Amino acid sequence: RPVKEVLFFPSTVTCINHLFLPGPCSCPLPHGDSTPFTRLLRHLLSARSSLDLCIFAFSSQELCRVVQELHRQRGVSVRVVTDKDYMMISGSQIGALRKAGISVRHELGGFHMHHKFAVVDKKLLITGSLNWTHQAVQGNKENVLVTEDSGFVRPFLQEFEKLWEANDPA
Amino acid sequence: RPVKEVLFFPSTVTCINHLFLPGPCSCPLPHGDSTPFTRLLRHLLSARSSLDLCIFAFSSQELCRVVQELHRQRGVSVRVVTDKDYMMISGSQIGALRKAGISVRHELGGFHMHHKFAVVDKKLLITGSLNWTHQAVQGNKENVLVTEDSGFVRPFLQEFEKLWEANDPA
Ligand SMILES: [Zn+2]
Ligand SMILES: [Zn+2]
Repeated sequence: RPVKEVLFFPSTVTCINHLFLPGPCSCPLPHGDSTPFTRLLRHLLSARSSLDLCIFAFSSQELCRVVQELHRQRGVSVRVVTDKDYMMISGSQIGALRKAGISVRHELGGFHMHHKFAVVDKKLLITGSLNWTHQAVQGNKENVLVTEDSGFVRPFLQEFEKLWEANDPA
Repeated sequence: RPVKEVLFFPSTVTCINHLFLPGPCSCPLPHGDSTPFTRLLRHLLSARSSLDLCIFAFSSQELCRVVQELHRQRGVSVRVVTDKDYMMISGSQIGALRKAGISVRHELGGFHMHHKFAVVDKKLLITGSLNWTHQAVQGNKENVLVTEDSGFVRPFLQEFEKLWEANDPA
């Protein structure tokens, strides 16, 4: 059955170590698996071959850990397109991604790259109002829609490729 | 066949008079019907009974004209939930909506109401990254997803009702 899900934020915060470890985590924090945030992370961690991400603001350390895990430990091909202004903000994780060897391009035009979507393995679309920031996840009213419907996934993949090419610095 | 569409912005600007008039508009501007922006307006103008709107930033005069047309001319029941900070920004249309007698509530909590979605007639969902501002429509890279899939529409309707009740000033 194809994935079809809507997640609403803010989300309560739990430890996320157990998403990365083979066994349970022994720290004293809660380890829920059904919060909107852990569900979002699970969808991202389901990647086996590729993650194509267009994100306006990226400062969440937890989401950065997920992207680095995919790139370093799981051999997933990660590409990121981001906004030129918001990659400079304090706490931005874009520098950490670049240092980790992940391919990041930023909007070269005069306006904002305001998308907040990811496509996992070219077939699962994750999109909505949620920037990848601590405040968005834990404070704001936000939505994220998750779908495998190719009528939605295909145009977002095309948009990603278009922005990826348009912002080639070479 | 249920509506399923993805719109990408920025959009070129055309005259929108012809969307409101019975006959064609005679002004010299272009009157395209296939730009992302006119398609968005057409979906909103398809409302017959209700428009439930959750919008972070609303400063577009064209979109304000659509909402006022629905409320004044077509007897559509319009409800708006918006952000407390962004309703104050220069150019915000929220004051104009309130003056026109449209029911507007704003986030009473400490964080942002960052959604950008509308539900038309309880059955058509319009959601994405696009705030209802001139810059978003004509400048930024943005997406809007339009769907009648009840698996998506239903949770957004529930979220609207939840925010509507939570922000009751009474
Ligand atoms: Zn733990
Ligand atoms: Zn005209």
